[in-house]
Amino acid sequence: MRKLINDPENVVADALRGLAAAHPSLRVDPENGTVVRADAPRAGRVALVSGGGSGHEPLHAGFVGHGMLDAACCGQVFTSPVPDQIIAATMAVNGGAGVLHIVKNYTGDVLNFRMAAELAEDEDIEVASVIVNDDVAVEDSLYTAGRRGTGATLFAEKIAGALAEEGADLASVAAVAREVNERSRSFGVALSPCTVPAAGEPTFQLEEGEMELGIGIHGEPGRERVPLADADAIVDASLSAIDADMPVSGSELLVLVNGMGGTPLMEQYIAYAATARWLEGHGATVARPLVGPYVTSLEMAGSMISVCRLTPDLTRLWDAPVETPALRWGR
Amino acid sequence: MRKLINDPENVVADALRGLAAAHPSLRVDPENGTVVRADAPRAGRVALVSGGGSGHEPLHAGFVGHGMLDAACCGQVFTSPVPDQIIAATMAVNGGAGVLHIVKNYTGDVLNFRMAAELAEDEDIEVASVIVNDDVAVEDSLYTAGRRGTGATLFAEKIAGALAEEGADLASVAAVAREVNERSRSFGVALSPCTVPAAGEPTFQLEEGEMELGIGIHGEPGRERVPLADADAIVDASLSAIDADMPVSGSELLVLVNGMGGTPLMEQYIAYAATARWLEGHGATVARPLVGPYVTSLEMAGSMISVCRLTPDLTRLWDAPVETPALRWGR
Repeated sequence: MRKLINDPENVVADALRGLAAAHPSLRVDPENGTVVRADAPRAGRVALVSGGGSGHEPLHAGFVGHGMLDAACCGQVFTSPVPDQIIAATMAVNGGAGVLHIVKNYTGDVLNFRMAAELAEDEDIEVASVIVNDDVAVEDSLYTAGRRGTGATLFAEKIAGALAEEGADLASVAAVAREVNERSRSFGVALSPCTVPAAGEPTFQLEEGEMELGIGIHGEPGRERVPLADADAIVDASLSAIDADMPVSGSELLVLVNGMGGTPLMEQYIAYAATARWLEGHGATVARPLVGPYVTSLEMAGSMISVCRLTPDLTRLWDAPVETPALRWGR
Repeated sequence: MRKLINDPENVVADALRGLAAAHPSLRVDPENGTVVRADAPRAGRVALVSGGGSGHEPLHAGFVGHGMLDAACCGQVFTSPVPDQIIAATMAVNGGAGVLHIVKNYTGDVLNFRMAAELAEDEDIEVASVIVNDDVAVEDSLYTAGRRGTGATLFAEKIAGALAEEGADLASVAAVAREVNERSRSFGVALSPCTVPAAGEPTFQLEEGEMELGIGIHGEPGRERVPLADADAIVDASLSAIDADMPVSGSELLVLVNGMGGTPLMEQYIAYAATARWLEGHGATVARPLVGPYVTSLEMAGSMISVCRLTPDLTRLWDAPVETPALRWGR
């Protein structure tokens, strides 16, 4: 296992120590796996809490800050955070206007966030929850009833975070996160597996000359194993799957071409060039592009494309200032 | 070869097409491999041009924009740009106050930038050149007479770019870039090799359980091949080498913990945590940290640590606003 780690059982706490040391704008509890804005709680503002298994960095802890999340709960690698983490984060950020939980659709995450929301109610904290399930690749998976939540999580966190920063109420912030999810779709491709440190072995095997279409973000099986293809063909397969589920023609799109962790930035830009060509050729406009490793799967090689059909309001909220370790503009 | 590419011979142009499509703030010539600020030339301002072989993204094209580079020249993968590219970029950004070439110390780069500087003189453009040679690992290498230029290139480009943005003259901008180089040191470790697309085979072989200390950014041999070690030991080897060359005790440091392309962000933060502990234990202060994949070597796994001993002026220039695809703050 060629990893830059110390104890394989403590990678999450060790990484959070680094996050804490590098970003004084965050209050990090490495042992308990919570990352909170240093200025929380913000009185009278809706607070956003997300989280999930670790190994997808910068999601979610890298998105904590002005205009995005108030807190992230970091589970062990590819493992849901426990309700104790979620309720601790929820209480730390509650400013009296309610808390929105943004939850990727994995069975463990959904269950644990639901339990935390019930605990929050006992503390008289109003909680709303939005489930993100944007991945068109499979209807159910190893870890999911229904579609998986992947790249659109970033869109929902950014856009709902901007609305919360404006002072909107909990119902409105939850509604815009749901709207983003409904207007978003994703599809990913793996060119290599990844290795969970505590397991020490790759999550799956790919034979020479093979790739996996419709992969999730945990090395779980995807839709189909096919011969390795070039970037244009991979992008075509990804966008065709998205377009079959939600036609993109005539839309103004927010587009994320996302590196899965082990794919160099040069290749991500090659994939973005192919993506922009494909979308233009199918009557869609890329209004807002984002290229980079934002929702990763450890060192997996591959890419995921996520699109969101923008409205003028969603575009305005996407453009609003954001200042987090991994996304920063306009401020 | 598991790569997200189309034609292995055209990866640079294909990636630049993606860069152009994603960043309207840049004027990109994919065929000729130049990337120029859309607002160039800026009358009366010193312009900064850098460049080198591709495969190190986001270096250099990702650093073109307000407060950093005016242009980048993108050679083929791990191959110096040719003088024609460099003179084209130099002429495109010349605003009458002279042009600074920031050159990593590789024989081909130094030669081609020197030829371009002579061509620029014929066009009555004043050019100053600064060679970056911060890598303490080896005295000479496959591609270098003298030390290699690596992570400090980012420091020099950011800090000199800020001074140019303030309106300083060419001599001053060149002097601050030289000062940054003299006050900076780097050391890198490879946990895996990388594969140049047109070659199709890894640049070197690492046996199971081995790593390469003192690697450069091209898969060229480093200082020593040793058994795989944990993050603390890797960081200790890297910082001990730096400290032996330039003692860090008592310094306020700018520190880059840099992913080489195939190492996930989680591991980069684990390395940063170890780095911050080591430096604190050796009497140095991390005044400005930066963690991420900024100077890469395709999909190589591993990390590089770069440090710069700050002065109040250098700190002010580091903190100045920057707005490029890969570095953005304060604006």
